[in-house]
Amino acid sequence: MTHHVYLFIKHRSTPSDGPELLGGKGANLAEMSRLGLPVPPGFTLSTEVCNHFLAHKGEYPKGLHADVEEALAAIGEVMGSHFGDPDDPLLVSVRSGARQSMPGMMETVLNVGLTPNTLPAMIEKTGNPRFVYDAYRRLITMYSDVVMEKGAGINPGEDAGIRVQLDAMLEEVKHEHGHTTDADLTADQLKVLCDRYRDRIQEVLGCPFPDDPLEQLWGAVSAVFTSWNGKRAKSYRRIEGIPDAWGTAVNVQAMVFGNMGPTSATGVAFTRNPATGSNVFYGEWLPNAQGEDVVAGTRTPYALNQESKTNTNTELPTLEDIQPEAYQQLVEIRTTLEQRYRDMQDIEFTVQEGRLWMLQTRTGKRNGAAALHIAVDMVEEGLIEHREAIQRVLPSQLDELLHPMIDPVAEGSCTPLARGLPAGPGGAGGKIVLTADRAEKLGKAGEQVVLVRAETSPEDVHGMHVAQAIVTAKGGMTSHAALVARGWGKTCVVGCGELDIQLAAGTVTVTGADGETVLREGDWLTVNGSTGAVYSEELALVDTDPEKNPILSTFLGWCDRVRRLNIRTNADSPDDAALARRFGARGIGLCRTEHMFFGEERILAMREMILADTPEEQEEAVAKLLPYQKQDFKGILRVMEGLPVTIRLLDPPLHEFMPQNPDQIREIAKSTGKDEAAVRLRIEQLHELNPMLGHRGCRLGITHPAITRMQARAILEAAAELTLEGVDARPEIMVPLVSHIKELEDQKSIIQSVAAEVMAEIGVEDLKYLVGTMIELPRAALLADEIATEADFFSFGTNDLTQMTCGFSRDDVVTFLPFYLERGIYQFDPFASLDRTGVGQLVAMATERGRSTRSDLKIGICGEHGGDPASIRFFHQVGLDYVSCSPFRVPIARLAAAQSALADEG
Amino acid sequence: MTHHVYLFIKHRSTPSDGPELLGGKGANLAEMSRLGLPVPPGFTLSTEVCNHFLAHKGEYPKGLHADVEEALAAIGEVMGSHFGDPDDPLLVSVRSGARQSMPGMMETVLNVGLTPNTLPAMIEKTGNPRFVYDAYRRLITMYSDVVMEKGAGINPGEDAGIRVQLDAMLEEVKHEHGHTTDADLTADQLKVLCDRYRDRIQEVLGCPFPDDPLEQLWGAVSAVFTSWNGKRAKSYRRIEGIPDAWGTAVNVQAMVFGNMGPTSATGVAFTRNPATGSNVFYGEWLPNAQGEDVVAGTRTPYALNQESKTNTNTELPTLEDIQPEAYQQLVEIRTTLEQRYRDMQDIEFTVQEGRLWMLQTRTGKRNGAAALHIAVDMVEEGLIEHREAIQRVLPSQLDELLHPMIDPVAEGSCTPLARGLPAGPGGAGGKIVLTADRAEKLGKAGEQVVLVRAETSPEDVHGMHVAQAIVTAKGGMTSHAALVARGWGKTCVVGCGELDIQLAAGTVTVTGADGETVLREGDWLTVNGSTGAVYSEELALVDTDPEKNPILSTFLGWCDRVRRLNIRTNADSPDDAALARRFGARGIGLCRTEHMFFGEERILAMREMILADTPEEQEEAVAKLLPYQKQDFKGILRVMEGLPVTIRLLDPPLHEFMPQNPDQIREIAKSTGKDEAAVRLRIEQLHELNPMLGHRGCRLGITHPAITRMQARAILEAAAELTLEGVDARPEIMVPLVSHIKELEDQKSIIQSVAAEVMAEIGVEDLKYLVGTMIELPRAALLADEIATEADFFSFGTNDLTQMTCGFSRDDVVTFLPFYLERGIYQFDPFASLDRTGVGQLVAMATERGRSTRSDLKIGICGEHGGDPASIRFFHQVGLDYVSCSPFRVPIARLAAAQSALADEG
Repeated sequence: MTHHVYLFIKHRSTPSDGPELLGGKGANLAEMSRLGLPVPPGFTLSTEVCNHFLAHKGEYPKGLHADVEEALAAIGEVMGSHFGDPDDPLLVSVRSGARQSMPGMMETVLNVGLTPNTLPAMIEKTGNPRFVYDAYRRLITMYSDVVMEKGAGINPGEDAGIRVQLDAMLEEVKHEHGHTTDADLTADQLKVLCDRYRDRIQEVLGCPFPDDPLEQLWGAVSAVFTSWNGKRAKSYRRIEGIPDAWGTAVNVQAMVFGNMGPTSATGVAFTRNPATGSNVFYGEWLPNAQGEDVVAGTRTPYALNQESKTNTNTELPTLEDIQPEAYQQLVEIRTTLEQRYRDMQDIEFTVQEGRLWMLQTRTGKRNGAAALHIAVDMVEEGLIEHREAIQRVLPSQLDELLHPMIDPVAEGSCTPLARGLPAGPGGAGGKIVLTADRAEKLGKAGEQVVLVRAETSPEDVHGMHVAQAIVTAKGGMTSHAALVARGWGKTCVVGCGELDIQLAAGTVTVTGADGETVLREGDWLTVNGSTGAVYSEELALVDTDPEKNPILSTFLGWCDRVRRLNIRTNADSPDDAALARRFGARGIGLCRTEHMFFGEERILAMREMILADTPEEQEEAVAKLLPYQKQDFKGILRVMEGLPVTIRLLDPPLHEFMPQNPDQIREIAKSTGKDEAAVRLRIEQLHELNPMLGHRGCRLGITHPAITRMQARAILEAAAELTLEGVDARPEIMVPLVSHIKELEDQKSIIQSVAAEVMAEIGVEDLKYLVGTMIELPRAALLADEIATEADFFSFGTNDLTQMTCGFSRDDVVTFLPFYLERGIYQFDPFASLDRTGVGQLVAMATERGRSTRSDLKIGICGEHGGDPASIRFFHQVGLDYVSCSPFRVPIARLAAAQSALADEG
Repeated sequence: MTHHVYLFIKHRSTPSDGPELLGGKGANLAEMSRLGLPVPPGFTLSTEVCNHFLAHKGEYPKGLHADVEEALAAIGEVMGSHFGDPDDPLLVSVRSGARQSMPGMMETVLNVGLTPNTLPAMIEKTGNPRFVYDAYRRLITMYSDVVMEKGAGINPGEDAGIRVQLDAMLEEVKHEHGHTTDADLTADQLKVLCDRYRDRIQEVLGCPFPDDPLEQLWGAVSAVFTSWNGKRAKSYRRIEGIPDAWGTAVNVQAMVFGNMGPTSATGVAFTRNPATGSNVFYGEWLPNAQGEDVVAGTRTPYALNQESKTNTNTELPTLEDIQPEAYQQLVEIRTTLEQRYRDMQDIEFTVQEGRLWMLQTRTGKRNGAAALHIAVDMVEEGLIEHREAIQRVLPSQLDELLHPMIDPVAEGSCTPLARGLPAGPGGAGGKIVLTADRAEKLGKAGEQVVLVRAETSPEDVHGMHVAQAIVTAKGGMTSHAALVARGWGKTCVVGCGELDIQLAAGTVTVTGADGETVLREGDWLTVNGSTGAVYSEELALVDTDPEKNPILSTFLGWCDRVRRLNIRTNADSPDDAALARRFGARGIGLCRTEHMFFGEERILAMREMILADTPEEQEEAVAKLLPYQKQDFKGILRVMEGLPVTIRLLDPPLHEFMPQNPDQIREIAKSTGKDEAAVRLRIEQLHELNPMLGHRGCRLGITHPAITRMQARAILEAAAELTLEGVDARPEIMVPLVSHIKELEDQKSIIQSVAAEVMAEIGVEDLKYLVGTMIELPRAALLADEIATEADFFSFGTNDLTQMTCGFSRDDVVTFLPFYLERGIYQFDPFASLDRTGVGQLVAMATERGRSTRSDLKIGICGEHGGDPASIRFFHQVGLDYVSCSPFRVPIARLAAAQSALADEG
């Protein structure tokens, strides 16, 4: 026998080949057979056969037919019945099995081998003509659809396929006889139906339904291989990044039947609870049923055992009750499989007339809580090592644990009203409000609200803060709304283009597939920020509290022992800083100072500064901001005692601090004593065609040195006063948007002179502080060696670096990036996960060049990518010292950093 | 004698040291002496003395005093009179002389050695007491100012210095005696004045005027050295990039007097005409006068000879007439100097009582026309080689030749009304118009107009086209106005912030140093686009016609033989292409297609496309544009027969094609049959926060493939039809704003499929065309190796590459870049001259990487930098194949490319 056909027969399967050749399902069937588990015998046609078949226009490797017939004979020997034998026929299933699971993407044909010739023997053998004709009906339905129509490349268009026609005929027959369910059909009625099916197939597809078992078998095998290149399978592979070249294996296996009568059954089980991770056997089953009946949801499944009972099946018997022997055998198999695979397994089984058969085992899918629980338990059970446990939990699973989520059961039964981009994770709900002011008012009154805006701006921050969730019609993953929401760990959906907001009318019109829906302020909205779905129903939430989760602490403790990257947080307030510290942040990597300017009195001073006519007026206005800023910094530095706190000098363009509406302009003119026209003129002058590339960052500090002086003074006075109190304050002052070393020199010299003044004034002799810069412009990365000579540290601003390197405005990409992603032009959103081949080159280059002139240069990253696991992996590889992310992503970053370190070990 | 003191005495000057040690003036005096020319004897104190003096707080190297006295003695020997000798005193001048000329930046003292002790002998010797007292008066004035006040570091504030006081006393004395000119003062009156001067000096400066000749000498020398670090000199050096470490030399030289009577004279001359370059001796002189009298402009200078006569001095005698011997001697010296220096010289001479003395020679400054003429003539005269001639003409001088300019004399007498950035060279004038429509109307009616706008947009193009000049209040060197103007070689000043335009009132308010000026539409404006000055006067223009300039053709022909870089042009119309070809362009490097969409019917089709609700509607609208585009391309390809024509696919964001004003919106809604609200909504949707980083470039072609298909078809049908006519059309299709190879693949596959269709339809078998890409995003540069595998050519879009790399929006930099330039943070505007250390790295990297995967990759540059000589030098060094620039800069690029090639040879 060549190595195209791999037998799996209890204790006799060929040496275990991997899923590359056998596919996942085939490899596991072979392994279970090797372990002596009761697997219906069968064989696998390898992925090589698939590739040969596809490369040679449907031809098979030489000798394959003989090998298959030999394998069928071997199965027949074990089962005691033979394929095509009119006296004692063996039926087989033909199933796909790719290296990586592609659920529902490829085809399956059951009951292959049933023909007018083998039917009588089957009836005799089972004594159940109804069962046999029903099996034949199922074969004809599947086969005509999968093999004769799709497999032949016929595309009759949606709702016109043969399957639809046959299903309609089934309904007709049921109707004729006044039946309501399939189960009511008698053997004779089914027999007539099968004959009608055959006639219709001949008529519609122009060829007879095959009566030769081998013809059926090869037809089914070919159809499965062909389905590898089906449209659905191909697009699934593109999304999941599965190479076309892998191909699928095909598994041909002796049929066993769970629907052969009251002592037959079928079921699925998990070796541990996949929703909680607790170490109990958990599953569902149905008596006298086939696997698809469990999955289809037409019958309420029974619980496998007491531990699996839910409120829908408390009264129904368990398998343990009904079939204690089979159940006991399953319990043993559960242990065998966990010992073998050292992970929670998802299994399928059938009991045929009291005899247990294992149809499938695979690593079980689980939610975040379960993944964590299982990993930690398995370490304690001695099944796996710490490092393995760390690798078992996906960062995205950890994310689930950190936010309340919509009850999955409730969500499953609803259709989203609209979909946008998942910008802030978790689930939340509340009454729709359309303005930040109203959100604040209702929020303060104790109402739960969802702020719905076309887009948000810094002036909406107060409303965003009280809202349960934020939904915007415009904007991308790094729009203002998304950034703020992620920073606060708040549920947020952005770019939800189906929403059209009528502010004046207080309504939101949603244009969906089902036409227009009009919502009003006060209507409820439930938002799933992890998927981007928005519901008009009020859905229940499942709460989570990471701080009260000792398993999480244990697990992250293991991560901390392994990782090399330091984890800091992006935090602008003492509260955020404290939260992040509890989540394990070891410092602040980015404290933005601009949000601090939006308080009522502060923004007025800021506006006075902007409107100042003379340097003196400007200094005077800026001076008013000093006490506020100092207080802010003092709070943050105190919370982060003993840890570094990187504070970025003012970054956004000044126009962001000015209002646009006439009333506010009038008010400002009044309060600053300026002419209204002059205020308007100044606002107009501040307007920029491309503010992202405009007068912002250190350009502000250079043209308005008063701002830098004030900010430096606020930071250094705060640190000096804390030092006098005995608090270990470690400020790191960061200059943004540097493109030229002279910009950094300019700002550094201001900071240094302020530092000297402050030390003298407050009487602290050797105040420790660092001065460094953002690396967020390509030019800075290219000239990092030069810039490093003036910088104590670098922090990559990968948001802006991505914008400049790719030429993408993160606020504007929404009009073409989704299209790009869909077409595979970009594989992923470069604002969500670092563009390693492009932007990553600049990160690597700047790191290397920076260290070439300053070996002790501290290097971190404080863009949104600091919380993205794939990006963290890259930053680890490049050799950064730390990543900084929003508080809620700190645990995720700790895990991702640990996984990166483990990946190094190979 | 150490080497601190270098004698220059006829036939006896020490071996010729260079200007590093002797300064420019000293080196030339030494050289003239060596050649035996009649130079008043003297000596140079080297730059080393200066550096010693400045480094040691005013101390001189040991032994210097003795050396100087020895040198004075040597001069005395030649002159027959001795420094300080009361019987026959020698007077000397003390002058600065840096390595590079710094005119007027350092000090001079004349007549050093005159004291009450030497006055009588001088009077006796000259028989002219008035002359001697006048000389003494001049010494006291200069010395008290330069040495006793400035040299001592006294800063009495503007208009309060000793010089001002002495000048006032002179006026008083003249007034006392009823004189109108200095010349009216008698010897006695001057004597009294000198005494009064001495008293005032004692009183004001607190020390007596020195009566010791040596004290005077050392005082003067020290003052000159000190002036190297004066404020003026330092700031001049910073601007000109002259290192502080160079220091200045000091020249001490025997005084000769052109004001000793009717046989004395003084003059300046050029060995050739510096305004035209013609090979005639050209100069001015004054009888009985000192050098400063010629320069001061108080007397009308006489012409040196017949050839030098102007309309102001036709009636005045020439030196040739009055002093034929001295003149003849000068003519011989002229030849000697040109032979020696092999370049046009600027000389100063004095005739003292019939005897000629040479005071100075240096390379003469010249305008562009003269530089060219002289260089070409000197090659023909065998004085210099071709390569030297090429190096003699500055690219900026060539630029002068290519544009009409304001008459320099007229301009000199006017004060600019306002100043902006010099965005389009040359001079022009016309009536102010404030809208493009009015400009077009008046322009078509034959009026000369200057279009004055806050800023321009593509919708102003028709008005810009007819205007003589464009002035904008906003925008930088690469704003829309600047780009369009340079492309057309049109005079343009941008960012002229002093202008405030009241469109409704039809007025322009200019706020200058002298308060507000209000101009109205119809008032005249003269614009100097080479300097950025704007005048409210109507100034005369000097015309130039490069095409009728055979010298230019000869010269550029030499350049073409030397250069390695190819020169192409940026041209969007057949006219521009033809012009550029006449200017020597060997192809088009950038044909923008978007300007072609602004014709009346075209823009309507474009708008229909943008407003289309269905793909069919879109295709239909786009199809209307095909015939126009094809006609455009056909015209250009025909003009450029046999040469490559790079056509860029549509680049700007779609919003640029939509109107903003309600009337136009209404009109469009009507003409497209759309709802007005829908049109407004679409315009709103097209709005982007940062359009530069938005939905433009190939992103448009990818999301709107109909556009790419139409443009590819227009280009390829044009080329195919021309091919059938026997015209050698060579289109190169360029995909803009590529950041990812898949973008290029996408567009290329569209182009290729269109090409196959067109070839089949038109029946051309092997249509030659290339498909390449712009490299204008940092990501494209970083991934150039990958992108090159799909590209036949690269063209660097250095405008956008600069924007992205530095994070500078060229439209917005005006608020901070001028500040940056002033403060020296950036040394130059990176949009005017390539930022070689930053952006240049990406250019070099992309070139190397691109060629690493495709050795025959054609690489050029089509940004604004393609016409900048310093940038061209860099592109040459990096190894590009060509640069492309606007038609009017093609000759400049040819020269710059040749100079770059010559620089390689060392």
